[in-house]
Amino acid sequence: MKMAKVTADLTAFFEPNSIAIIGSFRPSFFGGYVVVKSLLHGGYAGRIVPVNPSYKEVLGLPVYPSLKKVKYPVDLALIMINSRSVPYVIKDCAQKGVKAAIIVADGFAERDAQGARLQREIVEIANQAGIRLMGPNTAGVVNTHKQFYPCPYESGYDSIRQGAIALVSQTGMTNPQAFPYSDFHCGISKICDLGNKCDVDECDLLQYLADDESTSVVGMYLESIKDGNRFLRIARSITTRKPVLVVKAGRTSQGAKASASHTGSMAVNDLIFDAVCRQSRVLRLDTFAELFDVPKIFATQPPLKGNRLGILTITGGMAVMALDCCARYGLKLATLGKRTVSLLDSVFPGSGHMPVDIGPMMAAVRDAFSQYPDILDAIMADENIDALLHILWAHPSGNIIENYIRAYKRIKGKHQKPIATWIYGPNSQAVRDLGFQLEDMGYPVFKDLDTAVKALGLALQYANTQF
Amino acid sequence: MKMAKVTADLTAFFEPNSIAIIGSFRPSFFGGYVVVKSLLHGGYAGRIVPVNPSYKEVLGLPVYPSLKKVKYPVDLALIMINSRSVPYVIKDCAQKGVKAAIIVADGFAERDAQGARLQREIVEIANQAGIRLMGPNTAGVVNTHKQFYPCPYESGYDSIRQGAIALVSQTGMTNPQAFPYSDFHCGISKICDLGNKCDVDECDLLQYLADDESTSVVGMYLESIKDGNRFLRIARSITTRKPVLVVKAGRTSQGAKASASHTGSMAVNDLIFDAVCRQSRVLRLDTFAELFDVPKIFATQPPLKGNRLGILTITGGMAVMALDCCARYGLKLATLGKRTVSLLDSVFPGSGHMPVDIGPMMAAVRDAFSQYPDILDAIMADENIDALLHILWAHPSGNIIENYIRAYKRIKGKHQKPIATWIYGPNSQAVRDLGFQLEDMGYPVFKDLDTAVKALGLALQYANTQF
Repeated sequence: MKMAKVTADLTAFFEPNSIAIIGSFRPSFFGGYVVVKSLLHGGYAGRIVPVNPSYKEVLGLPVYPSLKKVKYPVDLALIMINSRSVPYVIKDCAQKGVKAAIIVADGFAERDAQGARLQREIVEIANQAGIRLMGPNTAGVVNTHKQFYPCPYESGYDSIRQGAIALVSQTGMTNPQAFPYSDFHCGISKICDLGNKCDVDECDLLQYLADDESTSVVGMYLESIKDGNRFLRIARSITTRKPVLVVKAGRTSQGAKASASHTGSMAVNDLIFDAVCRQSRVLRLDTFAELFDVPKIFATQPPLKGNRLGILTITGGMAVMALDCCARYGLKLATLGKRTVSLLDSVFPGSGHMPVDIGPMMAAVRDAFSQYPDILDAIMADENIDALLHILWAHPSGNIIENYIRAYKRIKGKHQKPIATWIYGPNSQAVRDLGFQLEDMGYPVFKDLDTAVKALGLALQYANTQF
Repeated sequence: MKMAKVTADLTAFFEPNSIAIIGSFRPSFFGGYVVVKSLLHGGYAGRIVPVNPSYKEVLGLPVYPSLKKVKYPVDLALIMINSRSVPYVIKDCAQKGVKAAIIVADGFAERDAQGARLQREIVEIANQAGIRLMGPNTAGVVNTHKQFYPCPYESGYDSIRQGAIALVSQTGMTNPQAFPYSDFHCGISKICDLGNKCDVDECDLLQYLADDESTSVVGMYLESIKDGNRFLRIARSITTRKPVLVVKAGRTSQGAKASASHTGSMAVNDLIFDAVCRQSRVLRLDTFAELFDVPKIFATQPPLKGNRLGILTITGGMAVMALDCCARYGLKLATLGKRTVSLLDSVFPGSGHMPVDIGPMMAAVRDAFSQYPDILDAIMADENIDALLHILWAHPSGNIIENYIRAYKRIKGKHQKPIATWIYGPNSQAVRDLGFQLEDMGYPVFKDLDTAVKALGLALQYANTQF
């Protein structure tokens, strides 16, 4: 067989005109049936091509006995069959002229030596045919901007909001079956589980996402880096245009060993990786949960222009905790300008200093909350402040929540400074609802105080490391 | 005035036979009105004595014009009036023979020099009269075991489950108006906001809680330690009986400065505090959020007897992340015993090793979830395992959740080993609901993976530092 040209373009994975699904169409929470259901539910506009000799029909679509029998071109194949059969299907893909394949099937390099051999075999076949491979052992991709949800595990089937955050993982934990994306109001552009990375890897994704206009920030979970030099080169290039945030597992020897049996990857020494990040302006995250939170500051807020942090809070204690956290990132508590001091002191004497703790004022001054929009606007307008940490109390009584909303409406589009918001309160539904409202207005709300500070801290780090 | 004997007993704060509320009874989200509403709603069995010359009645209760006119003994006074009037009320309390007073009012040492003088004045009056003071600038106390909720801020009014965790803070952020306790299924014994600590401080609380039978673990948020030597002595004593977990603010100079204007406290050098904790077996937390999560492992689970950690997960990636985190606490990945390996391999060949990743098994073996109770029971029975980190996928389809519940029912009361559970999934309500069910069965569920590992890590630290 003649060696075909392997394309560097990943378009076929994220916006194929047609997708073949090779797998079982028995109703279950996992399998080809779910992929078809998920594509239909998401509103994918391309051709859906189920392939399996044992089925005639699935969810109203005809099932083809083999790829050969499909009369239309197929851009992407999604393969979820026993690992031992995968090489034969890749050969069919080659004959059919398929451009890319997502191999959901597991039992490859992550399992044992036999699986590793199988993995090498499919890579060889695909390379010769010019087919790009994602996986194996992957939960695949999502592209919200094409309503493209080829999900192999049953997900919540709530639509994912379109947004500017791309998530790239070496695990299915960022795919829709694992995370409640209906609660993620900041929006997602693309999701990709790299799996065992037999072909497409983190560098390919970074290169692709660098040019992806719908993505303005990339969050990554990595267990390994396939090629450190290439990563450094590509990361340096993309981070001049958009921030990249990475949480890396396998930092310790225990973790690294487990990583080998998870995706068959050899973990990279963590100190070396840290140096690579510093040299390429990649921002490091510490926990998996941060991957769903910290990128929001970059996706929705203007860049940070200095380290003078304003804090507006209704609880003094949490300002103290936040300031401890700020010190780690070089964020300094701002000093209020005279006009802001005057305004605050006119509402409640002695309140005109940073951190602005409006708790005493709100308890003492009748209907003080109605002045909240003025207060927020004055603080945001203060030229001594570069960014705001905003701590809200989502309390159902009175006009508290209504005035928070009024306050955000007042400042919307007026001040080119990032705001990170954290909300607490006695009713978790009220906390969530207010958070959703603010995120729908374009203001990110963080799941805890430390993450809100960290988001601003990393925004500062990104601003300070412009090469 | 003769110096009265100041009692070290804090009973009057937490289980008074009668409470006087001195404040405004105008309906609002803050004030005396809310305290009365909250006491009535909570089902407090003692006498509720509202005091204010401007009101005749509040929520069906008669309002007394002054403490003098009250015909019954008053154990506790809750004072929420302008700071300048507080000394006069404390004098009234002295005349009435009140044992203890919670001063919710602010505007004392945390505000300015005048406030600090006022604070010294009330302490002097109270000392002479033998009245113990809590606060000022406090949101007060809760005692779930006496249905005692004298809350000055309107809270969710969902009842707080009785449990074994006491929370002591130098902020109102652990009080019911700030935290959704209805979601806290592990239960609370007592809550206390120390405020400015003009009299009752962290040491008094530790001493009191050491003997409190309804409390088995204490979580604290502190900005300062009033007397380091006393703290060391008392902490050493209580931690032989029950664990104490502390998150300390004001670790950095920025935070310490803010702490002074929050509660008028001088922060203690963090390195010294760290040494005090190590010498007294006090466990340190890093974030405020952990205060609501980590104590659950101590309140509900048997003590840890070794460092061999089992991991049962449906996602391999998160096991890798967890193992990185384990390394910090000296938790080592366990090796499975032969019987457990045989069982796992009989369900799915190759799955019998730690971490036990049942993801591939669940995707490949039809109805594999029905074997979940057997798998969990075998792992818990394995004598090579001292504790389990359990990662669940709360997926609404099929019999997944049902089998998780069956599994926990199967092991309930059988194995004297702690389990820390983390749940993820595509639907946040399903994740919460499963968590509530497990916590109602006595198994703590942590809000994120790192906190679950940290809880086990601190359980190990507590076990290893038995003096």
